[in-house]
Amino acid sequence: MKDFIFYNPTKLIFGKKAMEQIRPNIEAFGRRVLLTYGQGSIKKNGIYDKVVKEIQGLKVEEFGGIESNPRVETLRQALAQYKSFNPDIILAVGGGSVIDGSKLLASSFYYYGDPWDFLVKKVEPKKYVPLGVVLTLSATGSEMNCGAVITKWETHEKKVFVKDELYPKFSILDPQNTFSVSKNQTAYGIIDAFSHVLEQYLHTTVDVPLQDRFSESILLTLIENAPLVLKNPEDYHARANLMLSATMALNNLISIGTNEDWACHSIEHEMSAFYDIPHGAGLAIITPRWMRVVKNQKKKKLIQYGQRIWGLKGTEKRIVDGAIQATDNFFKSLGMKMLLKDWGIGSEHFETMTNRLVGQRIGEKALDKKQIDLILNGCMV
Amino acid sequence: MKDFIFYNPTKLIFGKKAMEQIRPNIEAFGRRVLLTYGQGSIKKNGIYDKVVKEIQGLKVEEFGGIESNPRVETLRQALAQYKSFNPDIILAVGGGSVIDGSKLLASSFYYYGDPWDFLVKKVEPKKYVPLGVVLTLSATGSEMNCGAVITKWETHEKKVFVKDELYPKFSILDPQNTFSVSKNQTAYGIIDAFSHVLEQYLHTTVDVPLQDRFSESILLTLIENAPLVLKNPEDYHARANLMLSATMALNNLISIGTNEDWACHSIEHEMSAFYDIPHGAGLAIITPRWMRVVKNQKKKKLIQYGQRIWGLKGTEKRIVDGAIQATDNFFKSLGMKMLLKDWGIGSEHFETMTNRLVGQRIGEKALDKKQIDLILNGCMV
Repeated sequence: MKDFIFYNPTKLIFGKKAMEQIRPNIEAFGRRVLLTYGQGSIKKNGIYDKVVKEIQGLKVEEFGGIESNPRVETLRQALAQYKSFNPDIILAVGGGSVIDGSKLLASSFYYYGDPWDFLVKKVEPKKYVPLGVVLTLSATGSEMNCGAVITKWETHEKKVFVKDELYPKFSILDPQNTFSVSKNQTAYGIIDAFSHVLEQYLHTTVDVPLQDRFSESILLTLIENAPLVLKNPEDYHARANLMLSATMALNNLISIGTNEDWACHSIEHEMSAFYDIPHGAGLAIITPRWMRVVKNQKKKKLIQYGQRIWGLKGTEKRIVDGAIQATDNFFKSLGMKMLLKDWGIGSEHFETMTNRLVGQRIGEKALDKKQIDLILNGCMV
Repeated sequence: MKDFIFYNPTKLIFGKKAMEQIRPNIEAFGRRVLLTYGQGSIKKNGIYDKVVKEIQGLKVEEFGGIESNPRVETLRQALAQYKSFNPDIILAVGGGSVIDGSKLLASSFYYYGDPWDFLVKKVEPKKYVPLGVVLTLSATGSEMNCGAVITKWETHEKKVFVKDELYPKFSILDPQNTFSVSKNQTAYGIIDAFSHVLEQYLHTTVDVPLQDRFSESILLTLIENAPLVLKNPEDYHARANLMLSATMALNNLISIGTNEDWACHSIEHEMSAFYDIPHGAGLAIITPRWMRVVKNQKKKKLIQYGQRIWGLKGTEKRIVDGAIQATDNFFKSLGMKMLLKDWGIGSEHFETMTNRLVGQRIGEKALDKKQIDLILNGCMV
């Protein structure tokens, strides 16, 4: 086990009555609220009305329109519009994109330059607006971590921003708020969470049995509950199990003392910086190809994964190949298209992407150009 | 799954170089430090010297002599002695008893009545001194929770005190600091952690698969690593795995959304309020007897426990009985005496204990007089 620091001060408020806790948790910070959300689904499914009712009487301004893969271009508009409002707290109502975008806003209210400066580490935020969350989609874990992924569409760059100050002060997780999430969006979220676990589990750090088992706990719970929600989107317990699993999948817990890897996410970030493919859909296609390319390096762990998650037996080769196939089958069972061309994506940007990825030295043991080529081209056939 | 709130802001600093983090983490709160510790083992094993070296130059006062099952009588002395010192932070160096005692101190510095008032809920603390921890014993989890168990020896009362403000601000966990812990103390600690998990796992709440698996992860890791440290007390990775497991066993994580039970701890607290038996030793004797008494009520969960933890197969009865026997065998394998009479304990206080326990309505489904009698008398034969 490697040395580590674990710190996560987010207050998680979970369950059928969680929404009742919005107001007291906001008022702990003040009465001026900037409400942020995405492209309108919360107005259709009634969550917007519920939130507005809870915060009635407070001084509220709102900014809607934060898109999937949130763009700095959009967040600049929000800042221009509300800088003078001077909120005591930002309340992000949405999934990972809204939360991530709101984290950049929370960092930028007291800064007079361009928020992209934080992403390229030109400058550090000096002061932050507190952030609260009402989660509407189980996927990214942003509700209980201090990271944000922001895109600059102009230059097709997608960068990660991590600051201890960005842990949400509180996050409201009512599984009922995910009942109306579509099958596809539900599946993308499950795959994102599943991939978060794999990226923190398929390393070669030895002697981390508790962290390994915590990871396996999440994978098994995702696998068990995925078909239940796809069959019955209003299955409260299955939605609750997925929601909790996705949050635990990326709140620092399972990675403590380990190397981690994150190659698939790095590749997918490059992919969705060039092509507008949902993050989970990209991960589903990339992950099995990545596994094939690193299967010798990670043989021991892939065997453990095959045995404990998929119940595989037999020779080492049989278990490793079976584990990769089982992962592929699981994504297919969620309705995923497993080839890039099914998304109308060609290879025109692969060279640029490969060069960038080689420069970033992605993976536990950095992938070389040949390996990245193999993965990307593997996604075509 | 039941509604829940999860909140745990303790910063866990773990590993071989964790001790280097003491000073910066203290200085975040000030320079006046009250150093608290137990009955002197840290002076023999060198930990005291290491800590003192790290905090050289700060304004330090110290109070040693906090005993196992810390007593309010002792803590009153500490307060009388150091109230005027007005510390910026208390640094507790020790195991659960030192940390629990220091939590009561942290609550009492700004109160002019008797600290026992907090235990009987006569009054609430208004202000707290921040607490930091250097852990020297893996057992209670107090390093990452906000509870304390305090004894009033005068009246043989043992009570629990829980306040959000009592989460340690930081806890230093260097597994090397547990190398010199004796075999018996190591075993008591493992049993305490094992029991913490069982108390949060052997409930009847349905649909909490992630919490169940997290619990099972800890149990399996304790079972695997216990014989390794008993064989080689300086096995770094095994000590690290036990330390992390004991912390995760009681930091709120595994109990979220569940009923919990806590009958064994309640019984053991009454026992060690009357008889001076180590907490872990008492739990080892009580737990299998308790399991026998509740085995019908908790049949489904005991089957899951038998199958997933002990790999048992066969009829339901065979699995349940086998699981109870396996638990008993595990404690024996750690060198535990499995009868109260082996500790020179007779039944003279059983009636008083039973009456108190019935009054407390202990357990997920409150145990009645007959059941408590069965458990206590079972501990004699």
